Amino acid sequence: MGKALAFDIGGTKICYAIIDEKGTVCSEIFKVNTPKKIEEFEKFLSETFSKFEQEVDVFAISTAGAVNNENTGIISSTGNMCEGYNKIDFQSYTKKKVFIENDANCAAWTEHVLGASKGCAYSVMLTLGTGVGGGIILNNKLYKGKSGSAGEMHFKLYNDKRRKCTCGAWDCYEAFCSGTGLKITAEEMLGNPEVTTYDVIAGVKSGDKKMVEVFDRWQNDILGGCIGLANIFDPDCFVFSGSMAEFIDTEYLEKNINAEILTAPTKVYKATTGNYAGMIGAALLGLGS
Amino acid sequence: MGKALAFDIGGTKICYAIIDEKGTVCSEIFKVNTPKKIEEFEKFLSETFSKFEQEVDVFAISTAGAVNNENTGIISSTGNMCEGYNKIDFQSYTKKKVFIENDANCAAWTEHVLGASKGCAYSVMLTLGTGVGGGIILNNKLYKGKSGSAGEMHFKLYNDKRRKCTCGAWDCYEAFCSGTGLKITAEEMLGNPEVTTYDVIAGVKSGDKKMVEVFDRWQNDILGGCIGLANIFDPDCFVFSGSMAEFIDTEYLEKNINAEILTAPTKVYKATTGNYAGMIGAALLGLGS
Repeated sequence: MGKALAFDIGGTKICYAIIDEKGTVCSEIFKVNTPKKIEEFEKFLSETFSKFEQEVDVFAISTAGAVNNENTGIISSTGNMCEGYNKIDFQSYTKKKVFIENDANCAAWTEHVLGASKGCAYSVMLTLGTGVGGGIILNNKLYKGKSGSAGEMHFKLYNDKRRKCTCGAWDCYEAFCSGTGLKITAEEMLGNPEVTTYDVIAGVKSGDKKMVEVFDRWQNDILGGCIGLANIFDPDCFVFSGSMAEFIDTEYLEKNINAEILTAPTKVYKATTGNYAGMIGAALLGLGS
Repeated sequence: MGKALAFDIGGTKICYAIIDEKGTVCSEIFKVNTPKKIEEFEKFLSETFSKFEQEVDVFAISTAGAVNNENTGIISSTGNMCEGYNKIDFQSYTKKKVFIENDANCAAWTEHVLGASKGCAYSVMLTLGTGVGGGIILNNKLYKGKSGSAGEMHFKLYNDKRRKCTCGAWDCYEAFCSGTGLKITAEEMLGNPEVTTYDVIAGVKSGDKKMVEVFDRWQNDILGGCIGLANIFDPDCFVFSGSMAEFIDTEYLEKNINAEILTAPTKVYKATTGNYAGMIGAALLGLGS
């Protein structure tokens, strides 16, 4: 059975493990801090690839940033990675195949093969964390667009310049529906710059009326974007993942999406494949499964 | 060479003509008023199909409303057509193949094969008329979604219930960016319920400052939506068609879309294949070209 050494490369840490073509993790999961200098990063790759080269068929990398359609290189700047990261020629460190894909795309693929959207030919995955990641599966394939960078959840939820997004544009879905977006919504509604996402969630749990209002506004923004995505893509389902996903009400979202769309009814699920979905998806994609 | 009898079925009139697999119109273009009763409609189909059955390989229909993935039936209600229209079994009137597709999809296909988006694997067509139609080409194929109804340009441009859309939801792109949307924007900005789309366009031409402001707001709404669509689809280009398309500034839109997106630069074109793009696209698709 085909095996990959699969990596999940994030801004803070790198996880890696041997994963087979069925998505089973076959080794311990190694964790290292993400190198802060490009020379250290390249040394890490070189040493790790050498060490595992005899054991695996593919080196499969789930990474921040957009990845080209050939799955060989990163085509966007990646803010929280070291300078030069997006210029790394991963293939230069091994003769075995190297496969690279965006982390949200990898996670969406894992859900499609093994998780919540299994059996769904058309799905939209939204990862609600510090930002909002997007992974789109159309007709059982990852949708990448002309350059590889499609699926950015930076569509405007308002068009009157009310909130700046980290991408530099105004009023993106991410600016409202991420964890950071929830904090800003809370700040605006409560007039308190100190309020945290945690305060909102704790307040909702204890029935604090104002916090419930803040949360509902946030969830209504998530809903508003999903209505548009459903009318555009006509997907079988939405899958929510990421640290903020546990707080959303999938039943509420599904009911209210379907009440407003022109396309056929859709489902709303939470992701089921866990924290290593990115790494597993890279392995599955890199091994062609 | 394969030939179709291709129809463009709209709420007011039906056009039809023989069109070959290269998209060339090979007969006169016949025009009739759209029957107002289902019995008359069925009589028209039955008689017209019989009359041309020996001459053509396919009956190809470009129609209002969403069409299923098998291209055999209409799956949505179609407000301006007679009652029962969306239940018609077109295939029952002939032994020759009948091919049906949504009119915006047909027009997008004609642009893809013969027009502004020729050579572009990924394109988004927006038809600005009374409403806003959408036709999406991904990897050189029409994108239809799970049921066939994808590409509805009913995504929210605002999420605070400021303008009701004809679809029943609030604040859709169509509600702001259609010709009707321009009129409503003018009404709101000028406080004059009598103002028409024509007044705005005439005012812009004569340099009326207020009308220019109204127009700019409308065009900025068109822009806002395109930024999101570009980040989601990463298309090679946008194509604008429909009666309102002649007034937009493609250079302005292209420059400002590309200034805000995370995906690779895109182009903005106006459609070049004219008023019969729907009918021609139905023929091309029905004949497999």
